[in-house]
Amino acid sequence: MAVSKPTAGRLAALVRMLNGTDAKSVTSSELEQLTGWSSATIRKDISALDAAAELEAAGGTGYDVQTLRRIIMERLGLSVEKKCCIVGLGRLGSSFLDYNGLEKTPFILAAGFDSNVNRLEILDADVPLLPTFKIADVIPRLGIEYALLCVPPDHAQAAADKLVAAGIKGIVNYAPVHLVVPEGIEIENVCVADALCSLTARISASN
Amino acid sequence: MAVSKPTAGRLAALVRMLNGTDAKSVTSSELEQLTGWSSATIRKDISALDAAAELEAAGGTGYDVQTLRRIIMERLGLSVEKKCCIVGLGRLGSSFLDYNGLEKTPFILAAGFDSNVNRLEILDADVPLLPTFKIADVIPRLGIEYALLCVPPDHAQAAADKLVAAGIKGIVNYAPVHLVVPEGIEIENVCVADALCSLTARISASN
Repeated sequence: MAVSKPTAGRLAALVRMLNGTDAKSVTSSELEQLTGWSSATIRKDISALDAAAELEAAGGTGYDVQTLRRIIMERLGLSVEKKCCIVGLGRLGSSFLDYNGLEKTPFILAAGFDSNVNRLEILDADVPLLPTFKIADVIPRLGIEYALLCVPPDHAQAAADKLVAAGIKGIVNYAPVHLVVPEGIEIENVCVADALCSLTARISASN
Repeated sequence: MAVSKPTAGRLAALVRMLNGTDAKSVTSSELEQLTGWSSATIRKDISALDAAAELEAAGGTGYDVQTLRRIIMERLGLSVEKKCCIVGLGRLGSSFLDYNGLEKTPFILAAGFDSNVNRLEILDADVPLLPTFKIADVIPRLGIEYALLCVPPDHAQAAADKLVAAGIKGIVNYAPVHLVVPEGIEIENVCVADALCSLTARISASN
């Protein structure tokens, strides 16, 4: 696919916003209002999907919401199931065990890992909870592609190294640490401090 | 400040990446390598800081890392303390109570709220833990600007409405729900599904 990473990021965000709309079709200027990006940027991002014929066939003025949504999902790899695991089952990590936030998404929780065997015994889950040393075996065997990394900051890089060695493709990093990983592995940093910094930056910008 | 929101978002991310470098100075092409954005975008973003004279005074080739970092922090409002609260003290919300991820940031945890009074009694924290109905009183009194919203999805919008009425400026939203808030209030969505979608989009893009 010839879509750049910034375009892919915007299209992923656009899909989420389209999920929240009841409209049957949207114009690029309506999308400008919805997203805050310029309509020129939006048109460029959508044209990178290389789906003009399909979008046109859906007819109407503007883009047909369901068609646009489906095409973006397909092009971004969001219409295929992906298995995930949690690494670190403290308060934060274990909060994702009883979490319904992955319903209606392509993501399936397949395992949890923690180095503390006592913790594994007291937690209750629908998926196998395993000691950390099993990462190397279990991740390739179950075909797990993504990890939610919820270990303490001083263990994050070592855990990331184990995950990479086991063949993980992407890590959602909750630790306030800059992870170093080989090219081709993607990291999504979602630590609280980063989220608060982004929020502050946007509030400053809108003043 | 005349910085657009996309620029502000990139500059906030840039500061985090600069924190992870040991270099004394960086050129815009080194920043291109570090960030993945084009050097033209980076130069445009930095010029929006309107700090050419200050950056030049720091001398050397490229940008002086500490000067650039300080200027971005100042312009984005990241050099002033900001008080935050947690709303919803289940596993996820309470995980931030013993969290050292806000050290060395301008963000200070000032209170936690939960509608379950029994839960408030069993949790242990350095900050006041209060019943949700006190939001309207406590947020303006303590000068709390930001909330980490950790309530279940079906309570998220009602909690956001309470926070907005109490004068909150920004919400980090952990619920997989699109929150509707008045103009001028900023939302940073950090739900797991969104993070996994962004990760997948970037992995698809890099293939």
